[in-house]
Amino acid sequence: MKISLAKHAGYCYGVQRALKLALEATVSSTKPIHTLGPIIHNPQVVESLKKQGVNAVNSVDEVNSGTVIIRTHGVDPKIIKKVKNRGLGLIDATCPFVAKAQQRAADLVKEGYNVVIIGERNHPEVAGLLAYANNQAIVVESAKELENVEVMGKTGVVVQTTQSLENLESILDTLLFKTKDLKVYNTICNATSQRQEAAAELSKQVDLMLVVGGKNSANTTRLTQICTKNNKETYHIETADEVNELWLDGIGHIGITAGASTPDWIVKEVIDRLETLAGGS
Amino acid sequence: MKISLAKHAGYCYGVQRALKLALEATVSSTKPIHTLGPIIHNPQVVESLKKQGVNAVNSVDEVNSGTVIIRTHGVDPKIIKKVKNRGLGLIDATCPFVAKAQQRAADLVKEGYNVVIIGERNHPEVAGLLAYANNQAIVVESAKELENVEVMGKTGVVVQTTQSLENLESILDTLLFKTKDLKVYNTICNATSQRQEAAAELSKQVDLMLVVGGKNSANTTRLTQICTKNNKETYHIETADEVNELWLDGIGHIGITAGASTPDWIVKEVIDRLETLAGGS
Repeated sequence: MKISLAKHAGYCYGVQRALKLALEATVSSTKPIHTLGPIIHNPQVVESLKKQGVNAVNSVDEVNSGTVIIRTHGVDPKIIKKVKNRGLGLIDATCPFVAKAQQRAADLVKEGYNVVIIGERNHPEVAGLLAYANNQAIVVESAKELENVEVMGKTGVVVQTTQSLENLESILDTLLFKTKDLKVYNTICNATSQRQEAAAELSKQVDLMLVVGGKNSANTTRLTQICTKNNKETYHIETADEVNELWLDGIGHIGITAGASTPDWIVKEVIDRLETLAGGS
Repeated sequence: MKISLAKHAGYCYGVQRALKLALEATVSSTKPIHTLGPIIHNPQVVESLKKQGVNAVNSVDEVNSGTVIIRTHGVDPKIIKKVKNRGLGLIDATCPFVAKAQQRAADLVKEGYNVVIIGERNHPEVAGLLAYANNQAIVVESAKELENVEVMGKTGVVVQTTQSLENLESILDTLLFKTKDLKVYNTICNATSQRQEAAAELSKQVDLMLVVGGKNSANTTRLTQICTKNNKETYHIETADEVNELWLDGIGHIGITAGASTPDWIVKEVIDRLETLAGGS
């Protein structure tokens, strides 16, 4: 049995940076360290950080002392103000590419554009982008949602950094019917595009595709969707335990990819388990 | 035999305005009247104007007295300056929608965008747009042409007013791979979109589609392309004489559309001839 890892997979720059900042904080501070929501969308990593004293909270109101880490997805700037006002320490681990998208959203509002955010309505990154657009933007997940929207005037677009280029294209095709004046900041990050392209390519070549990463991770879920399109034998797993021996029946070539928030050690565990199962058969 | 005319067809606002300005000039002036190139891309109309004293010239250098009419497609602003410098009268019949596209091209250069003009390299309207973009723009006719273009930085798009939305969409899909910062002025005029949509709709419903208009007319040629996609029995004709009796064999329903530079009287002649041929069969 052959196992191939996608050319681009796993931790992206923003996630690596956030984890580094969190670990540095545990070393340098004796006060409690909190992240606002899980620092990345990977339950195993969050669990491991918890053991090192980093706890996820749901709201700044829960924190009375110590430091608050803003996670990769970014937040409403009001929350950052609140952290400072409560006299808490602040570590802003917002992914620099998300910060750029936030800035673009603010710029568009300043320049008088009607802002459209392409992304998942309930994702924290999108909530942050919306706040930077003064909560004046409309959020669109798919071209279909635009069908009943009226003519929109001067329209500016920003995109959740983990969206697919395909979805952006299809929404722009529809927007062109709604406005004559369109400004697009394609804020999809390169790590996302690279992982998506590599996953699409590999999934076409293999008998079975495994996508490793948090079930709550937007970018990992998108990788699964892309792989499923190219290969019906695609499974999204969080850990090595989830690999089902029956999946491997008659399989010669397995492809693996992993989301931007998936640590290498989980990918390694998956590969180890696959090799054990193959050796045993 | 049933004959249906497309819901939107024939003269658009810009063409009507240009012809009105030309005819007013022949009434109010005793000096010679010239157009720089044929005033619209319809040989029959140009011929008819010639009889009323309006002559097409190729260059301002050919004109020593009288008035020069700038045609609907617009020109390099240097040419307008030249007309004035030579002490000639000037009637600017540039279509207001083309003038807006010219302004957009100039704005994009001023705002520091790398400008892309979507249109036909050899069309006078595109030559004018290019001049307004300080001749710094690249002209793109199709998405394929962009394949070998490098990453482009901050990119601004203007479109020849008679392009199809479909071509614009396909070029934007490709541009999204080349730049993160894209501004699109969709300067395709409403008359063009309406005529294209109506032609597409009608051509699906009929046995035979006739597109009436100048063979040198960009927008008429595009209507022909659109109808041919939907109905293989599509013919582009300039005059009633070109209707071939053999085309009508076994045809129950004929659709007709006409370019933005096609006068009603030519469309009427086509319908008359079809009715005569149908009556005779």
